Amino acid sequence: MKTLRLHGPRDLRIHEEPAPLLGEGEVLLKIACVGICGSDLHWFSEQGIGDAHLSSPLVLGHEFSAAVAGGSCNGQRVAVEPAIACGDCEFCQKGYPNLCENIIFAGHDTQDGGLRELISWPIKNLFPLPETLSNADGAMLEPLGVAIHAVDLSHINCGMTVGIFGCGPIGLLILQLARLSGAAKIFATDLLPHRIDAAKAFGATQVFLTDRQPGADKILAATSGRGVDIAFEVAGTPAAVDDAFAAVCPGGKVMLVGIPDDDKTSFPASAARRKGLTIKLVRRMKHTYPRAIQLVESGRIDVRSLVTHRFEFERATEAFELARRREGIKVIIEP
Amino acid sequence: MKTLRLHGPRDLRIHEEPAPLLGEGEVLLKIACVGICGSDLHWFSEQGIGDAHLSSPLVLGHEFSAAVAGGSCNGQRVAVEPAIACGDCEFCQKGYPNLCENIIFAGHDTQDGGLRELISWPIKNLFPLPETLSNADGAMLEPLGVAIHAVDLSHINCGMTVGIFGCGPIGLLILQLARLSGAAKIFATDLLPHRIDAAKAFGATQVFLTDRQPGADKILAATSGRGVDIAFEVAGTPAAVDDAFAAVCPGGKVMLVGIPDDDKTSFPASAARRKGLTIKLVRRMKHTYPRAIQLVESGRIDVRSLVTHRFEFERATEAFELARRREGIKVIIEP
Amino acid sequence: MKTLRLHGPRDLRIHEEPAPLLGEGEVLLKIACVGICGSDLHWFSEQGIGDAHLSSPLVLGHEFSAAVAGGSCNGQRVAVEPAIACGDCEFCQKGYPNLCENIIFAGHDTQDGGLRELISWPIKNLFPLPETLSNADGAMLEPLGVAIHAVDLSHINCGMTVGIFGCGPIGLLILQLARLSGAAKIFATDLLPHRIDAAKAFGATQVFLTDRQPGADKILAATSGRGVDIAFEVAGTPAAVDDAFAAVCPGGKVMLVGIPDDDKTSFPASAARRKGLTIKLVRRMKHTYPRAIQLVESGRIDVRSLVTHRFEFERATEAFELARRREGIKVIIEP
Amino acid sequence: MKTLRLHGPRDLRIHEEPAPLLGEGEVLLKIACVGICGSDLHWFSEQGIGDAHLSSPLVLGHEFSAAVAGGSCNGQRVAVEPAIACGDCEFCQKGYPNLCENIIFAGHDTQDGGLRELISWPIKNLFPLPETLSNADGAMLEPLGVAIHAVDLSHINCGMTVGIFGCGPIGLLILQLARLSGAAKIFATDLLPHRIDAAKAFGATQVFLTDRQPGADKILAATSGRGVDIAFEVAGTPAAVDDAFAAVCPGGKVMLVGIPDDDKTSFPASAARRKGLTIKLVRRMKHTYPRAIQLVESGRIDVRSLVTHRFEFERATEAFELARRREGIKVIIEP
Repeated sequence: MKTLRLHGPRDLRIHEEPAPLLGEGEVLLKIACVGICGSDLHWFSEQGIGDAHLSSPLVLGHEFSAAVAGGSCNGQRVAVEPAIACGDCEFCQKGYPNLCENIIFAGHDTQDGGLRELISWPIKNLFPLPETLSNADGAMLEPLGVAIHAVDLSHINCGMTVGIFGCGPIGLLILQLARLSGAAKIFATDLLPHRIDAAKAFGATQVFLTDRQPGADKILAATSGRGVDIAFEVAGTPAAVDDAFAAVCPGGKVMLVGIPDDDKTSFPASAARRKGLTIKLVRRMKHTYPRAIQLVESGRIDVRSLVTHRFEFERATEAFELARRREGIKVIIEP
Repeated sequence: MKTLRLHGPRDLRIHEEPAPLLGEGEVLLKIACVGICGSDLHWFSEQGIGDAHLSSPLVLGHEFSAAVAGGSCNGQRVAVEPAIACGDCEFCQKGYPNLCENIIFAGHDTQDGGLRELISWPIKNLFPLPETLSNADGAMLEPLGVAIHAVDLSHINCGMTVGIFGCGPIGLLILQLARLSGAAKIFATDLLPHRIDAAKAFGATQVFLTDRQPGADKILAATSGRGVDIAFEVAGTPAAVDDAFAAVCPGGKVMLVGIPDDDKTSFPASAARRKGLTIKLVRRMKHTYPRAIQLVESGRIDVRSLVTHRFEFERATEAFELARRREGIKVIIEP
Repeated sequence: MKTLRLHGPRDLRIHEEPAPLLGEGEVLLKIACVGICGSDLHWFSEQGIGDAHLSSPLVLGHEFSAAVAGGSCNGQRVAVEPAIACGDCEFCQKGYPNLCENIIFAGHDTQDGGLRELISWPIKNLFPLPETLSNADGAMLEPLGVAIHAVDLSHINCGMTVGIFGCGPIGLLILQLARLSGAAKIFATDLLPHRIDAAKAFGATQVFLTDRQPGADKILAATSGRGVDIAFEVAGTPAAVDDAFAAVCPGGKVMLVGIPDDDKTSFPASAARRKGLTIKLVRRMKHTYPRAIQLVESGRIDVRSLVTHRFEFERATEAFELARRREGIKVIIEP
Repeated sequence: MKTLRLHGPRDLRIHEEPAPLLGEGEVLLKIACVGICGSDLHWFSEQGIGDAHLSSPLVLGHEFSAAVAGGSCNGQRVAVEPAIACGDCEFCQKGYPNLCENIIFAGHDTQDGGLRELISWPIKNLFPLPETLSNADGAMLEPLGVAIHAVDLSHINCGMTVGIFGCGPIGLLILQLARLSGAAKIFATDLLPHRIDAAKAFGATQVFLTDRQPGADKILAATSGRGVDIAFEVAGTPAAVDDAFAAVCPGGKVMLVGIPDDDKTSFPASAARRKGLTIKLVRRMKHTYPRAIQLVESGRIDVRSLVTHRFEFERATEAFELARRREGIKVIIEP
């Protein structure tokens, strides 16, 4: 089978490799669509993310849909949860598989991901796709799950005011979910014009381009100085973090969803303390696939419009370079 | 001024009375619209509610809009919060004015309500109506506030399944708010065909008439036996309470919003315990007017369709009798 | 091996039976101590509990300690979690094994419990006992787990006032845990003088005998009419439920821990609604054994003083009759 | 009356000034004891704190007890809540007077504090001291309130493991409250030997001196690598913040109570995100005085041992210099 491996800085190569062996409780899958995530771009550009670093050539890709290859379910299309939790550690037992001590994650560290023709993966991590969901929709359920988890943790009440700092795919999904959760006003910011245009199209009350100046002042002005109840930081940049802290109201919540380049996140101590803020760090997702499928199937969340570019497997490097330049929104590769 | 007083069982009489005196911090209001609430019907039919009983002729009405009569704001249209909290007791201090120890409530006990031409009321209890909200809309903000509070307490997450047991005005508002909060599936039940029709029109996924049999079995069937995450009991009847407890899933929440006739609420002990349920009793509202106004103004909540009947002041008894027969949804009287 | 089976009303018989077979993931245990729980007494007296009924002779007992019999851990003393959760259903996955759809429970329905010489039980349900914990202490970890779960759900903050309605073993453990959680004042009630004496000895601020009149009035008097922040109902009687609802303050919580005889729990609707109460039904426990062991080992919780009677296996009926008359506090049988 | 004013860097001067005038709802108080807080030391050393700066000579001091001077309550000893909340803004209304938009705070910005003979202060901010509480105890209720609020927000459950990073007065009070809340194991760190000795004396399970190396590694080692459920950062130093984030377990909480010198707080982004942490910034207190009084009166919290130094008014500069060198624990001045 064809496999795409990251060998070094922006160095992806296609290999011919034998099909994977099946482990216990696993099934063989034929990969359909793989989305490129911001964390894939960290690997692509920096050969690592957080404190994980490339040790041997790695197959990236953790946002993917597939079809079962062989067995009684042959051909069944599925969405794939890329995180394999152990099920036994304290955190799994307590219902937090996203915090599993022994987590294995597709396309991360030493675990090859989805950018290949075939993968063997645990059956318990597969979710059948309804007919009305395309393979690309299926790949989008992974970022949608992250967005759902972020919104779950934030406890939006009807009529609240929300700020979204960063309008990439996750930011735009959070925006949709915030609307769906009854947020009365949603302010969105981004450095890129096409992303704030997308935010506007998805129903943001007001959008602000932050290429020249921060968005917080404008959000404060638009809320008579009060600020937003909940601020989602989804860019991973110091400027977006600062904006989120400045725009949130006393007693409000800052949800940190973005993955920073630097390994330190800094926030304004005095203002944050005076506002008595709660900060939550959003780590992956839990128990979200069934809900994600239902929300897309019922048409309440639009994942399709987020997919702006699709590439064949052979043009994967081109896809990564385009995603790296943040030209579109979601870029998908089809092995 | 003309005043409508309840003298005994279904005995409302119009009196000519002097205009009310202004207390400290109060302003004189000319009443515009008054909605009839289920609790007004308890007073009308039973001369009391809960452990409050009619001691002298009482002016009913706590869902009302008005216009300031005199002073620098003369003519300003306002929604009126009918509960006057003391601001000083432990519960007010802690942010629970709805649980105030010294609460005074319009149209309850010995405090005359809104079914009269003029009322003097604390300025802090008034909320200016935007131009786009009619006087009838203004009167609807009170039941909307109760519905918002119920939904706030329930913590609906996107994609959850919700049951609504009782489709009177509050039930239908909760239904709208549950949709607005991202509920993926909403089941609604009522004894009356025109009310479940309204529920369907407001977006319930499935509605069930419970005149012959309980709705819980059908809801369980529609959810593959799982049940709903959150059950709102909004009828105040033993049958609706039983349905809510039977239809809710393990770990779920039962929100008791309805006001029962009887002073005992009973629920199935063994099943409720086995499911580890949380039950919340919804007491009025807190801090909801600004959000209610925003939700109606932005068109996200439709209060207007709920007003099915309007009566002039002189026909108040007719209005109460119609409401008592539960013929329409919300009945409004215009003094 | 010797086995004690319930055949009918208060009819326990000792049988000689073959040793149990080992299932997958199970180990053979030699039972050390078995506590008699209120739910065992329901089975003993009424041949059932809730909607479970005796269909064939059943081995009761779910509060037990044991020693591993055979294998590499031969002789290792363990506490035994009597509930076997499936680990796969939605509720297990979400961290609520106590709400597992497929739960199997020792000494309940058709699953034989601990009142026999040997049992085979899943290894994952066993918790090694530290040296300083006796076998009787080990059996007490099960009721302690229930009490911990009840207190966890109640969110006691330092300085709060707590009421405990029912001073059997679980009530007395909740009392200790409430003290340990910083409750400033704890009021306890029971029908039996020796139980309120025990409550006093365990540090209740004031205790009230409720054989002639309810305790709520006295608790309200002792709190200047305010009532308690959290009321634990641990008797399972209508009188205790009424007391708990009457004694709790506005905005407070009623924790229903007791198992009622009747299958309806009734509470005063009007007062409960006016107080905006939250009611939680406590279903078993989750993730509590490690904490329970730590609390006993460190001497912060005293389980030993609760064990007032111990019986040999042959005198099991005598033990059940004594427990049924509620003469002591915890009765233990040693197979 | 004698008044102590801060004129510049470590420049305190005693003045003779006229007695203060009474505002509406205020009463004249004779100051008894004033504690020196870390924030006073920021003013003393840096002429400001956070974004507040010394504009004209300021009377410091916000931890104080007093006696009513004149009127029908003449001589009544009281604890004084130093924060005057407006009662009307959104945050006051919602029960968060600590986040009041219009807050006035004793000894901060332009509001003179307690380091003088007489002060006029709102009656609603006074709490009568029981006989058994000394004036110094009364002054300690303010830091105790901050500690209670921090522990309230942290939701300690019985049996949890807690870390305290910084053992000044607030840290030692949090330590006591954590014990009182049922924490099974408490680890405490500080740079100064006499402070970790105090932590040990107040019941910390293990204490670690962090003058040479961080405490997190030792705490991780002591918990088999798991870490603590809740980490209280009470030093306000980058090292303590790092320690708190490193020592907390996945899904845990970091409570930021300390006031940093720098106006940026930085934390390790990648590890914090992977652990899915919740961070809460603790802002003053709310509704804590009655509980604080009760906890001290009942002997459950020991504030007295924290007062290591007492100075007469005339020796105030000496007191501040000693506090600044962190020689003792709490330094009190008696006007």
